[in-house]
Amino acid sequence: MPDQTYQKEPGALRADARHNRERILEAAREAYAAQGTDVPLTAIARRAGVGVATLYRRFPTRTALVAEAFAEQLSLCAGVLDEALADPDPWHGFCAVIEKVCVMQAVDRGFTAAFLAQFPDGGTDYERVWSRTEEGLAELVRRAKAHGGLRADFAPSDLPLLLLANAGVAAEPREVAVAASRRLAAYLLHALRAEGARPLPPPAPLDLRSVHAERR
Amino acid sequence: MPDQTYQKEPGALRADARHNRERILEAAREAYAAQGTDVPLTAIARRAGVGVATLYRRFPTRTALVAEAFAEQLSLCAGVLDEALADPDPWHGFCAVIEKVCVMQAVDRGFTAAFLAQFPDGGTDYERVWSRTEEGLAELVRRAKAHGGLRADFAPSDLPLLLLANAGVAAEPREVAVAASRRLAAYLLHALRAEGARPLPPPAPLDLRSVHAERR
Repeated sequence: MPDQTYQKEPGALRADARHNRERILEAAREAYAAQGTDVPLTAIARRAGVGVATLYRRFPTRTALVAEAFAEQLSLCAGVLDEALADPDPWHGFCAVIEKVCVMQAVDRGFTAAFLAQFPDGGTDYERVWSRTEEGLAELVRRAKAHGGLRADFAPSDLPLLLLANAGVAAEPREVAVAASRRLAAYLLHALRAEGARPLPPPAPLDLRSVHAERR
Repeated sequence: MPDQTYQKEPGALRADARHNRERILEAAREAYAAQGTDVPLTAIARRAGVGVATLYRRFPTRTALVAEAFAEQLSLCAGVLDEALADPDPWHGFCAVIEKVCVMQAVDRGFTAAFLAQFPDGGTDYERVWSRTEEGLAELVRRAKAHGGLRADFAPSDLPLLLLANAGVAAEPREVAVAASRRLAAYLLHALRAEGARPLPPPAPLDLRSVHAERR
């Protein structure tokens, strides 16, 4: 009679696989938050305590792993944006997006990496969601200006400017970072109001994608 | 007759010493800019291409090296602040300080490390200049509020908040960083005006010294 103690039931095997998958995704999020999305897969396998072969079997490319690790964040972002686009007051919607994105950035340091991750092989689901997000943001900005809430000289490069400024604050310990992000977002949104706007220096040569490219 | 070819003139020796000193200070500024002020002295000696003994002879403590490496930046800051305190319009002086400090941070990545460096042995010239700078900033804020330019709910912790936000922007490549810092400073100063101020979320638990302590 064969020794059964080392043979697991199919249910237990699936639970193991799920557990490994979660450990890999968790390790990936931590590593990306600390070092950006260029961390080698071998380093992530080591951090997760799984073999490199296990990792490659589940996530054959860096793209697959990044997309999976940040699927939740990206879908949260897309949800926040959809809600804002449905708001009858586009300026109110715009403020809600900035406030929520700033707090997400403070709560989860991997968020910026996720938001700015770009994939050389394009055409992934992740890339499609990203493109939709960019278009949605541009549409929200257009409506908020037309409605008179957002100042007319708000430049496309001001969005990455806000993200970068908030990233500086979000690097503090979490409780500090959240309070600081809320305060910073309130100051910035006040400055972005059309009402009482004053002349500004020219926009910086920034766009969401170039910010990412420079950081790699 | 002894061989003179390996004996240098006193003037040449002094020039060598000056040259070594400059290389050490340059290496220190680079290392601090990249990694903060906790880099071991041995790493700085290696980067400068001098022996550890040479470095220790000139800079016996970390404090001595940091203070010397950033003496120029700190004295620039003190000068900017003195000018602002002499300005008959304290709000104008306050804006000038924020604008200049933001650009200094963008131009020189070691600046934040310098500005926030703290020394366990205190009582150094550097520490004295720092204390004077802190007192001067507090006085400038008090006057700018009393004069009506700066909003009354500007909190002491808003200064490190601005520095952190600008540090996020200053991490970009230099030309981008300078343009982005100018734009960010303009937005923030607009939001700091007493005129048209709106309620804000509570200040974040930040102070210039704790920001530094957390980063170490």
